[in-house]
Amino acid sequence: MPSIQNARVLFNSVPKGFPVPGETTVYDTTPTIDLDTVSLNGGFLIKTLVLSVDPYFRVAMGGGSHPGFTLGSPIAGFGVAVVVRSETPGVEVGRHVYGHTILHQEYIVVPELGALQLMERHPNLPWSVYLGAAGMPGQTAYMGWKEYSSAKAGEVVFVTAGAGSVGSMVIQLAKKDGLKVITSAGSEEKVKFLRSLGGDVVFNYKTTDTRMILKKEGPIDIYWDNVGGDILEAALENAAVHARFLQCGSISGYNSGQESSKMFHHINGKALHVHGVIMAHLPLMKYLPEFYTTIPPQLASGELKYTEEVTRGLDKVGDVILSVQKGTNTAKGIVLVAYE
Amino acid sequence: MPSIQNARVLFNSVPKGFPVPGETTVYDTTPTIDLDTVSLNGGFLIKTLVLSVDPYFRVAMGGGSHPGFTLGSPIAGFGVAVVVRSETPGVEVGRHVYGHTILHQEYIVVPELGALQLMERHPNLPWSVYLGAAGMPGQTAYMGWKEYSSAKAGEVVFVTAGAGSVGSMVIQLAKKDGLKVITSAGSEEKVKFLRSLGGDVVFNYKTTDTRMILKKEGPIDIYWDNVGGDILEAALENAAVHARFLQCGSISGYNSGQESSKMFHHINGKALHVHGVIMAHLPLMKYLPEFYTTIPPQLASGELKYTEEVTRGLDKVGDVILSVQKGTNTAKGIVLVAYE
Repeated sequence: MPSIQNARVLFNSVPKGFPVPGETTVYDTTPTIDLDTVSLNGGFLIKTLVLSVDPYFRVAMGGGSHPGFTLGSPIAGFGVAVVVRSETPGVEVGRHVYGHTILHQEYIVVPELGALQLMERHPNLPWSVYLGAAGMPGQTAYMGWKEYSSAKAGEVVFVTAGAGSVGSMVIQLAKKDGLKVITSAGSEEKVKFLRSLGGDVVFNYKTTDTRMILKKEGPIDIYWDNVGGDILEAALENAAVHARFLQCGSISGYNSGQESSKMFHHINGKALHVHGVIMAHLPLMKYLPEFYTTIPPQLASGELKYTEEVTRGLDKVGDVILSVQKGTNTAKGIVLVAYE
Repeated sequence: MPSIQNARVLFNSVPKGFPVPGETTVYDTTPTIDLDTVSLNGGFLIKTLVLSVDPYFRVAMGGGSHPGFTLGSPIAGFGVAVVVRSETPGVEVGRHVYGHTILHQEYIVVPELGALQLMERHPNLPWSVYLGAAGMPGQTAYMGWKEYSSAKAGEVVFVTAGAGSVGSMVIQLAKKDGLKVITSAGSEEKVKFLRSLGGDVVFNYKTTDTRMILKKEGPIDIYWDNVGGDILEAALENAAVHARFLQCGSISGYNSGQESSKMFHHINGKALHVHGVIMAHLPLMKYLPEFYTTIPPQLASGELKYTEEVTRGLDKVGDVILSVQKGTNTAKGIVLVAYE
C-alpha cells in the first residue's frame, strides 16, 4: 500500500487571548504514513477515532498546572483510537485504547500502552461518550461530588457551566441525592438542556443576573465552580456557613489573562483543601471537653508554652489595638483592667 | 458608698487605615456607678479583670464577617470578670465569668449569663491565659488543627504569626504530631520565642524572604494562615499536592483596605471548605470501579443524560478549541476524526 496522508494538528504559538485557529494551532497535512510498512518496534499502530476538546486546553497552551502542549508538536488530549496493527502482546488489532495522551493526528505509532488503557464500549454508547459523561469529565464530576460535596438531601447546590459534561453530571448526581439545584449556562439551548436534567432553578447567566438569582434562591450549601471570576465572587457572597466550594475550573479567566486569581489556579491544580477556621463555626461540643481537660494542665506544667503582653489600664486599649494591628506587640495582647 | 468612676472604651469612629487611639476609640471616664445600690433587676454586677485585644478587632471596626462594634458604645470582646453582686441564682459573688461579650468597661451590670460562662481557673494559671492559649485563640488552634489539618508525622507545616496565641499553639500541636514546622514572625524577640517552641525553621519575615525559605524547606503540606496577602500567595506557590490550607486570619489586609481578597474574607467568615478538584489528584482506585459499573449503563438507559457537539474533521480542532473557550459551543466538544 502506498503512503497516505497522516494529518495532524500542531501547537504553533502561544495565544495572547483567545486561541486563533491557523495560528495558535495549525492543521498540517504534509506528513504521510504507510500503514503496512511503518515500523512498530514492538509497539502498535492506532487510528484515531474521537478526540476530546476540553476547557483545560487553553491552560495547556499557556502554561499553568496542566502539562502543557509542546510548540511545534501535535497537541494531545483524551481520545479513543482503534488498533490497526500490533506487535504488542495483549493489544490486539480491533481493540480500542483510551487515554489523555492521544495525539491529534490521524494515525499514531504507539511504543507501549503507557498511560493509555484498553477500553470496552457499552453496546448502546458511542465512543464519544467515553470522552464526556463516561470519561474524564464525568469521572471528575462523579468523584469530586462523592469525595468532597458532603451533600445532604434538601441542601442547595449551584452548578455553573451546567450544560458541560462535568456540570451536567453534577446536576444529575445532585438531583439523585435530593438537593435543590440552581444551575446556569450561556445560551437558551443549553438552558433547555439544564431544564431536561431536572434543574430546579435554571438560568442564562448572560441575560439574568447571577447575584439576583442566588440572593433569591440561596444561600448555597455547595458550589461547583467551572467558571471562576465574578460568578465565583457572587457564589461566595451567597454561600451558607460551612458551604463546600468544589473548584473544578475557571474558564472565565483562561483567555483574558486575568486569572480569577492566582490562588484558584493553585487550589485546582494542586487539589488543595481550603477550610475556613472560625470559632463560631467549629464543633465546640466535639472538642471543648477534651480541650479543657488536657490543655490548661499542659500550659500550667510548661509542657505547652505561651506568651502574653499584658498592658495595665483600660485607658490603654486603643494603644494595644494599634500595636496588635501593626504587629509592634511582642506577644498576645492582654489589657489588665483591674486586680481582684 | 458614693458613686465611683466607671471608665469605658467607646468605639468612636470607623478608621480609614490603622485605628487611631483617641479617635477610633475614646477612653471615657465620665460615667459613674454606685456598686452598692445600682439596680440589678435579677442580674448581676461584674468587675472586669482581663480583656483580650485580638486581631479581629480591626474587622469589627470596619464591618465584615464578625459582629461589629457599635459606634458610640463600649467595645466588647473576650474577657474575664469577677462577680461582685448578684441576684441571679447560681451566679455567686466571687465566681468568674468568661465570654466574648465583656464590655471594655470597669464595672458592668449583666442581666443574665447569656453568652458568658462561669469559669474555674487552673491554680497555676492566671486568668489572662484563658484569653490566649487556654481561651478562644488556643481553642481555635486546637480545634482547627484537629478537625482540618489531617496532619501526618513527617509532613511540613508553615505557620504564620507563629508567636501569636493561635500560632504558638499550632506550632506545639504540630510538633507533638511529628511534623516539621516552618514558622515566621516579625521581630527578633518573637523569633526567639518560636525557637523555644521547637520550630524547625524559624525566621523573621521582615528580614528574610518567605518565598526563599519555602522554596528551600517546602513544599508545604499544611499552611496555617493568620496573615493573608502576599505571604498567602507565597504559601500557595509552595504548596504540595493535597496540601491543606487553614485560613484563620488575614491581618495583612485589615488596615490597608486591600483585603487579600474578597474571597478569603468569606472562606474564613463562613467557615467554607474549598477543595481543588482535578482528575490527577482524585482517588481513582476508590471510585473508578463503581463508576464504570454504574454510570455507563445509566447513560445508556437514559437514566443519566448527556449532550455532545460532535465536529467532524481533525482540521476543525482549532475552531472547536475556540468555541469551547468562548462558550459558543452548544455542548461537550468532540472532534470526530474518523469512522472505523
